[in-house]
Amino acid sequence: MDIKGFQFSAVEAAIKKPGRKDLALIFSEVPARACAVFTVNAVKAAPVLLSAERIQSGSAQALLVNSGNANACTGDMGMVVARETSHLVAEGLSISDDAVQVASTGVIGVQMPLERIKNALPALVEGLSSGTLDDIAQAIMTTDTFPKMEARSAQADGIAYTVAGIAKGAGMIMPNMATMLSFIISDVAVEAAFLESAFRNAVDCSFNAITVDGDMSTNDTCLILANGMAGNSPITAGSPAAAEFEKLLHEVLLSLAKQIVKDGEGATKFVEVRITGATSNADAKRAAMAVANSSLVKTAFFGQDANWGRIFAAVGYSGATVDQSRLSLRFNDVCMAENGVFAGGDAEARGTEVLKMKEFSVCVDLGLGSGTATVYTSDLSHEYVSINADYRT
Amino acid sequence: MDIKGFQFSAVEAAIKKPGRKDLALIFSEVPARACAVFTVNAVKAAPVLLSAERIQSGSAQALLVNSGNANACTGDMGMVVARETSHLVAEGLSISDDAVQVASTGVIGVQMPLERIKNALPALVEGLSSGTLDDIAQAIMTTDTFPKMEARSAQADGIAYTVAGIAKGAGMIMPNMATMLSFIISDVAVEAAFLESAFRNAVDCSFNAITVDGDMSTNDTCLILANGMAGNSPITAGSPAAAEFEKLLHEVLLSLAKQIVKDGEGATKFVEVRITGATSNADAKRAAMAVANSSLVKTAFFGQDANWGRIFAAVGYSGATVDQSRLSLRFNDVCMAENGVFAGGDAEARGTEVLKMKEFSVCVDLGLGSGTATVYTSDLSHEYVSINADYRT
Repeated sequence: MDIKGFQFSAVEAAIKKPGRKDLALIFSEVPARACAVFTVNAVKAAPVLLSAERIQSGSAQALLVNSGNANACTGDMGMVVARETSHLVAEGLSISDDAVQVASTGVIGVQMPLERIKNALPALVEGLSSGTLDDIAQAIMTTDTFPKMEARSAQADGIAYTVAGIAKGAGMIMPNMATMLSFIISDVAVEAAFLESAFRNAVDCSFNAITVDGDMSTNDTCLILANGMAGNSPITAGSPAAAEFEKLLHEVLLSLAKQIVKDGEGATKFVEVRITGATSNADAKRAAMAVANSSLVKTAFFGQDANWGRIFAAVGYSGATVDQSRLSLRFNDVCMAENGVFAGGDAEARGTEVLKMKEFSVCVDLGLGSGTATVYTSDLSHEYVSINADYRT
Repeated sequence: MDIKGFQFSAVEAAIKKPGRKDLALIFSEVPARACAVFTVNAVKAAPVLLSAERIQSGSAQALLVNSGNANACTGDMGMVVARETSHLVAEGLSISDDAVQVASTGVIGVQMPLERIKNALPALVEGLSSGTLDDIAQAIMTTDTFPKMEARSAQADGIAYTVAGIAKGAGMIMPNMATMLSFIISDVAVEAAFLESAFRNAVDCSFNAITVDGDMSTNDTCLILANGMAGNSPITAGSPAAAEFEKLLHEVLLSLAKQIVKDGEGATKFVEVRITGATSNADAKRAAMAVANSSLVKTAFFGQDANWGRIFAAVGYSGATVDQSRLSLRFNDVCMAENGVFAGGDAEARGTEVLKMKEFSVCVDLGLGSGTATVYTSDLSHEYVSINADYRT
């Protein structure tokens, strides 16, 4: 994987327990086009506030990220730390403060160990010569069990470019404060407005398809830096390379999002939830998210119990327009229910076979319109499933 | 406890596994004033559809309830069963079909064992002579670990009357399909409109303070029957006995709601979440529910970890108007955070002491207005807390 003009570094700053890298730096040798999607939580971490302000310029050249401390609910002092640490990085790199994005993940409400970070910064900047993107993926892990990376290459004007990304999720995927960080870098040249729209679309179909809008942590950040050093002529909305760039971006983000789901704590299943026949796409998303987030549905997945009624119930309370007499449901290609009632025959046995697989899909047709949505979820394999998973037996 | 004019019966109808009563009947010797609150799920069980239709008359004389099968997602056949079983009960009691309310709880999507229920009905009606309310509380249990009952007595016009209630919850209290059934009976005489408003207010401050509006099961039902056999002159909104009746109703429902929380699967803590200083009561309720339902907050409670930042984060994504620089938080009387940041001093140690208690309160002041709300929740003591509860250490 060759991404021109990017350098990486990660060090131990003793923000976490000793022995784990917890401070990382991504640097682009030239200013990069940048855009980002941040948490919509009303309580925002200091780095989110600072980065959101800075990224309005549409440009950035470095990202300073730490794990072990979220720098959230830290008031004015938190802002001082975010500014001060990014200032020192900017100095070390001879760029302006505003070109440095900052991100944090970890415990909320504890002040950052400013001195320890300051002490670690010289080595961090120095390490740029020898680091890899993999180092960064490792350093941003919190309760993740594996680093999450993806990269894809393509050509624009016959010139090769790469889109690469890393992400961190959390022990458990829930619509609830599991801080999600993802950083995408590319050497492609791309026009600003097109980058923004392509990026936002890709986020919507990936990270926003594994968590509920509005139920975000104080720190969620998804950032892209595109430095243009591949040397292609900038891709715009109309250009021949546009569609492939969008596809690449989508694939990288979706892969990272799926890795987050697969790393859900104790997850034993990877489930695609698809809603069709809704009165709108928004309604379909609502229904899909209700199913994907239902603890009772997820425990039934873990118990390999084809308890399709729980899925209808989740659809019913999702807020989507529903006519219960029109609902149908499939596990992969097995029809479990039609017109709101059990399909009969050997559906129970065949549905149970599907649920024994490691990956499967659940498709609910609302039978009302043409709205569709797809989201991804895991099962819920906690001890309390002994009550919920075996409820029917 | 003497509730004039009510009779009770419960039998085994083999809807559940053998050895547990699963079919129950409450009968009032005279028609009773009746009102009910049902699930707002768009997917409604057959008994909910039938009972909601019948209760529009404002009157009922019997309740037929079963556990082991929810009679939900059962289509036309489900309605046939609900009508047929209640018709047979009506015949046995020599009352009209419309005077029989029906309720079910259990697995969704499986047809009811109509023949087995029919076979059990004669013994059920016959048993009315010797049953108790306790029998009913037992028969409606599913994953509950103890039956839930409460009763209070007072006087109106110098005449004693009683309000008694039973409820069933679920293994785990979540904003999610944990079917809640509660049946309240009273021998008080009460005017219809006043009963309705008093009952709805009491439900709002009790059962609706332990679960999120809209996230209801297909079967949730809370029903009150007041048969007037105490012989007082009917209580109306203006009468001297009105306030005390409202208080009694509130106490009985709140006690039942709290019992449901305490019976949350694996619950080791009972937590009162209080929001003050919101711009409205509705905003306060939103914030309180977000805190009470946050898996990360609840695992911190279980871990006895004074991780107040998670509470601010939940308030932040609740949808309530929030200014993070004005937030403050107390565990009982220990101030953990003020103006959005850690209170310092020995707050950590003292807060941790509070969280070691079996029952405590969490109060968040939003610092914006005069809106308040109180909700009740448990901790989340599942195995996955090993990740979340010890996150900070």
